[in-house]
Amino acid sequence: MSVSTEDVERAAVRIAGHARRTPLLEAEPGLLLKLETVQHSGSFKARGGFNRALAAREAGDLPEAGLIAASGGNHGLAVAHVARALGLRAEIFVPTVSSPVKVAGLRALGAEVTQTGAIYAEAYEASVKRAAETGALEIHAYDQPDVVAGQGTVGLEVLEQSGGVDTVLVAAGGGGLVAGVTAALGGRARVVAVEPERIPTLNRALAAGGPVRVEVSGVGADALGASLIGRIAYDVTSAAGVESVLVPDEAIVEARHELWRSYRVAAEHAGAAALAALRCGAYTPAPGERVAVIVCGANTDPATLA
Amino acid sequence: MSVSTEDVERAAVRIAGHARRTPLLEAEPGLLLKLETVQHSGSFKARGGFNRALAAREAGDLPEAGLIAASGGNHGLAVAHVARALGLRAEIFVPTVSSPVKVAGLRALGAEVTQTGAIYAEAYEASVKRAAETGALEIHAYDQPDVVAGQGTVGLEVLEQSGGVDTVLVAAGGGGLVAGVTAALGGRARVVAVEPERIPTLNRALAAGGPVRVEVSGVGADALGASLIGRIAYDVTSAAGVESVLVPDEAIVEARHELWRSYRVAAEHAGAAALAALRCGAYTPAPGERVAVIVCGANTDPATLA
Ligand SMILES: Cc1ncc(COP(=O)(O)O)c(C=O)c1O
Ligand SMILES: Cc1ncc(COP(=O)(O)O)c(C=O)c1O
Repeated sequence: MSVSTEDVERAAVRIAGHARRTPLLEAEPGLLLKLETVQHSGSFKARGGFNRALAAREAGDLPEAGLIAASGGNHGLAVAHVARALGLRAEIFVPTVSSPVKVAGLRALGAEVTQTGAIYAEAYEASVKRAAETGALEIHAYDQPDVVAGQGTVGLEVLEQSGGVDTVLVAAGGGGLVAGVTAALGGRARVVAVEPERIPTLNRALAAGGPVRVEVSGVGADALGASLIGRIAYDVTSAAGVESVLVPDEAIVEARHELWRSYRVAAEHAGAAALAALRCGAYTPAPGERVAVIVCGANTDPATLA
Repeated sequence: MSVSTEDVERAAVRIAGHARRTPLLEAEPGLLLKLETVQHSGSFKARGGFNRALAAREAGDLPEAGLIAASGGNHGLAVAHVARALGLRAEIFVPTVSSPVKVAGLRALGAEVTQTGAIYAEAYEASVKRAAETGALEIHAYDQPDVVAGQGTVGLEVLEQSGGVDTVLVAAGGGGLVAGVTAALGGRARVVAVEPERIPTLNRALAAGGPVRVEVSGVGADALGASLIGRIAYDVTSAAGVESVLVPDEAIVEARHELWRSYRVAAEHAGAAALAALRCGAYTPAPGERVAVIVCGANTDPATLA
């Protein structure tokens, strides 16, 4: 399955005025930080959610039952935000292990929360079944074309705001963000996908020539912990020859502290993974290379920043 | 004493590549947030410090003894940062009551710290005496033309990045920032100076026709707590007809939480005061008015943000 540059351009028009155009900070000569931390709901995920819901509305396909998603994390928060902003209902399925703080956060955004299943996959299955009953619009965390195209708008903004870069570093979980950015750039800049060493979902897939299931652990697991890469992500990144690199957890932890110390930017671990690749040498730019790093999420306990 | 638009323009050229060009976020239609939180040392203060030190270097007047300042707060951090970045010595005088955390922070930046005097005024007097002995370049927290011109560069950036606004809301303590921004704008936008009700330093001065000493208390006191407005600030703001408004502490506290909740922006209380004026109705824009708010500092304990 594929997503094109034009799909991302259409998404950008569609979500304008709904998702925020986030700042691109010139952090050092040649290093640009895309501060998706200030996005609605605290991560880039609102872009894909808005694009899918608004595309359905355009097509006259927005059901009475509203939106439905499975996620105890940023995707759930984003879908709850999108629903509230557009005046829709949202039903979010989370595993029973989800922290009470997260469940309360989703409810505070007006979502109906159902806790079911020991692991994410079970909550997801329950959400699919429920969607079949209610007719609600399913918003997948990464493996739907409209979701991928929406995430890609962050890549278009990087191009526009920078006037052109050589390379964009992007964290990958299920791969919606990296696929969207790859589609957005359409070869106008190199894409480097960054994953924790302990969650090499895309890395293994690219090596194996197709999605393979991996073990998931470490500091990035809450947001990057997809055990299987999305079909769209695999197809788009393998076709485009996206470079894949791995970073140790310690580098992610240190990059997150650097973002706070040097820029007072609150990032969650997943949000610091792309910067970690630069700092630990997993990706080394050539002299004079202009690099953009997507700081993709801020949903973290601020008490742990300093 | 006066500072002109040209002074600020010269400062902008001088500090380019030293101070950061910070992002301007379109937060809502008509509301722009200038995120000075990502500035070096966590506040706009690095701008004035760089401008004064670099102007001295240009004039061949940079002493062996380096920079000297009195401040246990953002000004001290900024001068320490500037000295380190330019390879100079920094001596910072702080009152004996200063928290060990702040003193440690200054030392971590490589500054020599002298704790002396029960209150700020005594630490300041000691720093002036010491400067006379060593020949170090004094950097005042707000009442020097090069400092004011440096702070004003934030106003020039707002104009450039926005393509024009109607109004800029600026927090005032000793008044260096608001004077600099007023000079930068040179009548191209209205300036509104915002102070806590419990620190009406500029407000009383404008009403009285000259600087008057005020009592200082409340949540903004650590950064906005100047008991007497600077001479330059008084002259520049009174000549330009700057509007002065006061906000209650509760509005500042709430605006600071809004910045975290809605944008994941870490602001200290002083950094949220200008937004508070909009939110509590101390300043009410006309329909369609485009307003920029300077979020001027981030030096806060992140554990208190959520
Ligand atoms: C902050 C953050 N970064 C990165 C990702 C990974 O995104 P994707 O699953 O589209 O690869 C997520 C997913 O939840 C996230 O929340
Ligand atoms: C965060 C912050 N905002 C505002 C001010 C006030 O600046 P001025 O003294 O130039 O008015 C200060 C001064 O320390 C500050 O640190």
